[in-house]
Amino acid sequence: MPVACKIKESIVASSMIRRMFEEGIALRKERGDDKVFDFTIGNPDLNPPEAFYQAAQQQVQDRTPGVHGYMPNAGYDFACAAMAKRCSREHAVDCSAANIVMTCGAAGGLNVVFKTILNPGEEVIVLVPFFAEYSFYIANQQGVMVTVATNDDFSLNVDAIRSAINEKTRAVLINTPNNPTGRIYDEASLNELCSLLQSYHEKGQTIYLVSDEPYREVIFDGAVVPPLLNRYSESFCVTSFSKTLSLPGERIGYIAQSPAMSDQGEVMNGLIMCNRILGYVNAPAFAQRVVASIFQERVNIEPYVKRRELFIKVLDDAGLQYCKPQGAFYFFIKSPCDDLVFVDQLKKFGILAVPGRGFGLKGYIRIAFCVPAEKIIASAPLWIEAVKTLQV
Amino acid sequence: MPVACKIKESIVASSMIRRMFEEGIALRKERGDDKVFDFTIGNPDLNPPEAFYQAAQQQVQDRTPGVHGYMPNAGYDFACAAMAKRCSREHAVDCSAANIVMTCGAAGGLNVVFKTILNPGEEVIVLVPFFAEYSFYIANQQGVMVTVATNDDFSLNVDAIRSAINEKTRAVLINTPNNPTGRIYDEASLNELCSLLQSYHEKGQTIYLVSDEPYREVIFDGAVVPPLLNRYSESFCVTSFSKTLSLPGERIGYIAQSPAMSDQGEVMNGLIMCNRILGYVNAPAFAQRVVASIFQERVNIEPYVKRRELFIKVLDDAGLQYCKPQGAFYFFIKSPCDDLVFVDQLKKFGILAVPGRGFGLKGYIRIAFCVPAEKIIASAPLWIEAVKTLQV
Repeated sequence: MPVACKIKESIVASSMIRRMFEEGIALRKERGDDKVFDFTIGNPDLNPPEAFYQAAQQQVQDRTPGVHGYMPNAGYDFACAAMAKRCSREHAVDCSAANIVMTCGAAGGLNVVFKTILNPGEEVIVLVPFFAEYSFYIANQQGVMVTVATNDDFSLNVDAIRSAINEKTRAVLINTPNNPTGRIYDEASLNELCSLLQSYHEKGQTIYLVSDEPYREVIFDGAVVPPLLNRYSESFCVTSFSKTLSLPGERIGYIAQSPAMSDQGEVMNGLIMCNRILGYVNAPAFAQRVVASIFQERVNIEPYVKRRELFIKVLDDAGLQYCKPQGAFYFFIKSPCDDLVFVDQLKKFGILAVPGRGFGLKGYIRIAFCVPAEKIIASAPLWIEAVKTLQV
Repeated sequence: MPVACKIKESIVASSMIRRMFEEGIALRKERGDDKVFDFTIGNPDLNPPEAFYQAAQQQVQDRTPGVHGYMPNAGYDFACAAMAKRCSREHAVDCSAANIVMTCGAAGGLNVVFKTILNPGEEVIVLVPFFAEYSFYIANQQGVMVTVATNDDFSLNVDAIRSAINEKTRAVLINTPNNPTGRIYDEASLNELCSLLQSYHEKGQTIYLVSDEPYREVIFDGAVVPPLLNRYSESFCVTSFSKTLSLPGERIGYIAQSPAMSDQGEVMNGLIMCNRILGYVNAPAFAQRVVASIFQERVNIEPYVKRRELFIKVLDDAGLQYCKPQGAFYFFIKSPCDDLVFVDQLKKFGILAVPGRGFGLKGYIRIAFCVPAEKIIASAPLWIEAVKTLQV
């Protein structure tokens, strides 16, 4: 057999998001760009802010020897210091550079955290629906993913989490604002979750809280994403500039540990070593330098605000049900029938969406609205037609 | 326990190269930069070639939407096509873009290859001495590293490899020009190795040949690094621009599969998926674009040529024995005593080197000569003194 058995299985069952993304490329070639409405992938179409281009310009002019060379595996001191400032502000803590590891995006950061903390067979609680890649990140590091339901409105169900905890539980992974639902976990439920984990910590079983939060700055209607690291000492924030600065292809993010974490030096040594030995070695030098100098900038999210409004109208007109997203740039829509059937029906009309089962929850579909407004507007009659002609 | 057991062990036993690199930083702070001669890490001090700065300049001016966004996980088509050209020329094959995956450096590439091909417990043959990180890359992907000796001059010992092969053997990893020895494997020995692997392939056990070759363009005295992918269908070239363009911090490299590989489509799907699910997602966009446009450039290696000559004199004057490196930028020096003792003795004189046991071979030390010539010259009397006063 040419590839490992597990990889062969995974290729077959591979991420529906990516598969739909590739299908979209094929469909555009076949039908023409204007006939395809690809809402599959969270690939921000907004350009980075002006400050990015200026900072990048300055970086590439720097001919100081070594600026493209190796640096400590945690990243440049100045980059870690900048992220510490950002994290301290967002999480109401007093982080220092020593609490930060620069990573190849949040995906790299999550792998580094899991590699550092998981013994083989230890469990990570993940809330349904979830970003499908989590299952790989946990399995890569020999962990076991345990899925736990959320409430009907996709808010935290702490009782369900409580019931899922056992002596093998090593971490709870949350994603807020959430992909795919757009839900932001509120302060009360986070407090409840943190108390629960604190009680285990005090009994001697440390369950890390890992917050994957690349969408923290993509929020609507004046929503607030509560700080987290200040609530529970054994917590990590893993994030990236993929959405905040529209740089997903540059693979730049970081891990922050709570400055109150127990054994934080040992944990940090583990994170730094895992960043190295997993083959990332370090986050890309150029991107580190750029984000260190513009970490207070962000893309203007007004277009997302407008598109969300447009999509609300489109979905309402088509008679579809959904929870209004508070953040991120997705709608997780109740499917009028089996989600695979509905996705196929939409495809007939040139609309590409991802079935909910790709996020561990059948009966829904996800659409991404980080696409031009004209695409959303032009798709409106097709949504209506697709729903109307659905043979259930 | 805050970190996983295996990680705790690894932190303790962690890479001697990196540990010495960090010690070097501390020692410089303590004694002053001019009193420390740090020959530990292969961090090229030469600037990238002029073409790099021009290409980088052009890239950061490009405001086309999406140039910093996600692209297919294999990398940009045009980047893969450029690497295919480069690889075809170097390996005397006819590679296409479909045989290439852009990766986060060679370290990322090796992890992707091992994840793709290794079932748990399968073995990878590695030749002693070896780049210490290999042991992590193989273990990350549940493989077992099997070490095999080379000849006294560090050339390939194909008989030893033959003896180490069993039904669990899944790959042979070679590194030529070699870190730490500078040895280039010659055509005859590569032919012998490839015939051996071919005979297994014909019997139904495919043993992949993985060639880690970031030093292919750092060669001396008119040496030739023989092409490899043309010799054995089941082979991968894994490489980076860390040395060729002096860009190690940017994490940019690629995997090329032999265009004659069996089941190459399935293998390529595995590589692309593993690049994604290991959390690399894709090689950094900026670096992909830059190397795609200057893949025919390389740093002027004249300074390395000169430094090698300088070090030959230094080591000869100190009465030390070594094999003259044919490529890369290291000397692997016979230690006059236990390698840890010798490294300690050198440190007393401000000279930092890595003990051979960090490469799986006691009784040697490695020094890197990608450092300014003045440093090498200034260290000369200290080497003599360190060897002379050695209490063995």
